[in-house]
Amino acid sequence: MNNSNGSFRCISFLSDFGSGDETVACCKGVLLQRGISLPLVDISHDVPPFDIISGGWMLAGAALYLPMGIHLAVVDPGVGTDRSILILESKRGDLFVGPDNGLLLPAAKRLGGVEKAWKLRPEHFESCQVSPTFHARDVMAPVVADLAAGVLPSNLGEGISEKSLHVYPLAEPARDKERISGAVARIDTFGTVRTNIPWKWIDIGKEGGLRISRSWLFSISLGKTFSDVELGDLVILEDSWGYLSIAVNRGKAADVLGFKVGDPISVEYTM
Amino acid sequence: MNNSNGSFRCISFLSDFGSGDETVACCKGVLLQRGISLPLVDISHDVPPFDIISGGWMLAGAALYLPMGIHLAVVDPGVGTDRSILILESKRGDLFVGPDNGLLLPAAKRLGGVEKAWKLRPEHFESCQVSPTFHARDVMAPVVADLAAGVLPSNLGEGISEKSLHVYPLAEPARDKERISGAVARIDTFGTVRTNIPWKWIDIGKEGGLRISRSWLFSISLGKTFSDVELGDLVILEDSWGYLSIAVNRGKAADVLGFKVGDPISVEYTM
Amino acid sequence: MNNSNGSFRCISFLSDFGSGDETVACCKGVLLQRGISLPLVDISHDVPPFDIISGGWMLAGAALYLPMGIHLAVVDPGVGTDRSILILESKRGDLFVGPDNGLLLPAAKRLGGVEKAWKLRPEHFESCQVSPTFHARDVMAPVVADLAAGVLPSNLGEGISEKSLHVYPLAEPARDKERISGAVARIDTFGTVRTNIPWKWIDIGKEGGLRISRSWLFSISLGKTFSDVELGDLVILEDSWGYLSIAVNRGKAADVLGFKVGDPISVEYTM
Repeated sequence: MNNSNGSFRCISFLSDFGSGDETVACCKGVLLQRGISLPLVDISHDVPPFDIISGGWMLAGAALYLPMGIHLAVVDPGVGTDRSILILESKRGDLFVGPDNGLLLPAAKRLGGVEKAWKLRPEHFESCQVSPTFHARDVMAPVVADLAAGVLPSNLGEGISEKSLHVYPLAEPARDKERISGAVARIDTFGTVRTNIPWKWIDIGKEGGLRISRSWLFSISLGKTFSDVELGDLVILEDSWGYLSIAVNRGKAADVLGFKVGDPISVEYTM
Repeated sequence: MNNSNGSFRCISFLSDFGSGDETVACCKGVLLQRGISLPLVDISHDVPPFDIISGGWMLAGAALYLPMGIHLAVVDPGVGTDRSILILESKRGDLFVGPDNGLLLPAAKRLGGVEKAWKLRPEHFESCQVSPTFHARDVMAPVVADLAAGVLPSNLGEGISEKSLHVYPLAEPARDKERISGAVARIDTFGTVRTNIPWKWIDIGKEGGLRISRSWLFSISLGKTFSDVELGDLVILEDSWGYLSIAVNRGKAADVLGFKVGDPISVEYTM
Repeated sequence: MNNSNGSFRCISFLSDFGSGDETVACCKGVLLQRGISLPLVDISHDVPPFDIISGGWMLAGAALYLPMGIHLAVVDPGVGTDRSILILESKRGDLFVGPDNGLLLPAAKRLGGVEKAWKLRPEHFESCQVSPTFHARDVMAPVVADLAAGVLPSNLGEGISEKSLHVYPLAEPARDKERISGAVARIDTFGTVRTNIPWKWIDIGKEGGLRISRSWLFSISLGKTFSDVELGDLVILEDSWGYLSIAVNRGKAADVLGFKVGDPISVEYTM
């Protein structure tokens, strides 16, 4: 285990709280009240509301570029129900704090996988000070502060097996000789469709480009960057994290294609 | 008085400037140029433009969770007119800096009330360096820097009585045996209607639920969290700050109900 | 030269990445991984996508109020093409890092002008670790980290003349006896039209106010602040940076006038 006090170099925070409310600041205030002085990085607070798929994919996208730290992630439609709150340790040594709904798993996987997992003990929820609709402020932020101060996860939660965790709600990509199957994991601010299909699976040497099938089939050019195609044209390219994405040069591919998060995508070679 | 240098642990900043302009960064730059190194917490810069009610309620929502600090709050439709700029000291020892339009009062109240109040002396506005449309950058941020450096409020402004301050522009909640009266203080990002009616005033043991009256009456279920009702259904619950709120599970109560900030709300028992 | 290690007091960051993606956090993470501890100021990440004019004007608006630092600015429709990435030193001693498309020049000019310019050597782009669509994370942020750690620009790029830089894509303002010509440099969050015409060029003593001409002519009152006119009325005033702007008291002048960024504006005296 690698999370002794002093080894963490940042606290990151991702949520669907929006930047229009004071809720993010309440959570940060709890950390400051507890004397936490680690640099705090906002990953984003504009995850689409309740969208665990997008939130999980964004957390994974940021995790590899952050130094080892404690990562608070809250997209939590089940707040106030009996869903668990988790602490996950990645193989790299990071700690993730968030609800048990799959949100934390893609990021842990990018950092080598889940080393250990704990779920918070019931006493964390029992104080009358805990608002049933704001566990991020009243339960999770205090846990992050504890962890940053060197408290061991095992003193906060009970160990559970990785298999008992709720899975990330997007099917893993798969491939056979003729076909690669995956799904839309994220539609970014620019309207680019980011899939969970590893780019290295694509045989870019094959003739004829690719077909993307959903209920229909069509062909799109392969490119390296947006401007490899004309303004307004579609292009398939490796995204900045090593996955297949579909973009429009200065346009919004998701709108053009009618894709939304979670949609299945399959890739077939034209020949 | 409790604001000697060294006792403040953060500077917080709330405004309606939006995150799309460089104006917030200009104010932060002024603090950095002055060598201020306290942690800076953005409460939100997306207060609806000119909306003193929402801004004041959000500031109050954050204040209790922030450590003692200096709080800069700017929702200031009267910028450039002869409205005063205030420094308020809360009973907890925090200092608030902002326009005299009621914006600062709910937060000061949550922190025990107003201990002392000052209004800035006219010389703060007289430099040709002061833009009439950007007092936050040219007057208030320098005052925050002075206060953080240990300058006493009495050296910056002249003491005024709390009674002479402009009030927060939302009527205080009231109750008699049959009825509780309040108002909509905030519609949050999720469309939840937050009122200024203390939850502890509600007798949840009474039969029949509640009625919320505006121009019409209707009944809504009481709950503890959003998912206590079906998707799309309305629920009345205690918000995370101890006030009555009205939400829709994964929907926008304000849109369903047609409520806006400032609307009067009354609560009556059905029996 | 003034950029020896220790003289920088902040890192600022402006982009059109939006706050809805994890991309900004990836860049910040790269800095943290490299051990950079300078205060980081977000100028804005909501520059309209690909809008070099707005981004450059916003950077200039913030620069003068920030302490001397390293400024990372990324509005980069040419990412992945052969456009250069620049390091500019301002006469004040700041360093700017960003694409060679004119984005950095208005800010450098406000800080005294360009003292020296370098373009990054090709080896910065050659690693297989560099994503062709995310140079901010893989090329520019590492360069900022190097500069913050005291590496000299001349060790990262080759010196080029200021004349060879791509210009800011907005014509400089000009004047003769009868007429001042300029352009819309920015439409802010409040809908105020900010031009690149210096306010000091306006002879406010002349009778009859001003005419603003585009394809048509009209007259607007001169004021000092928004509330010098009735609600909903247009007013011409000096903006907070010393340039001519056109506003509507609590309304959106750009919508009323149909102006957009880049539109030519001319000012003529009615008498």
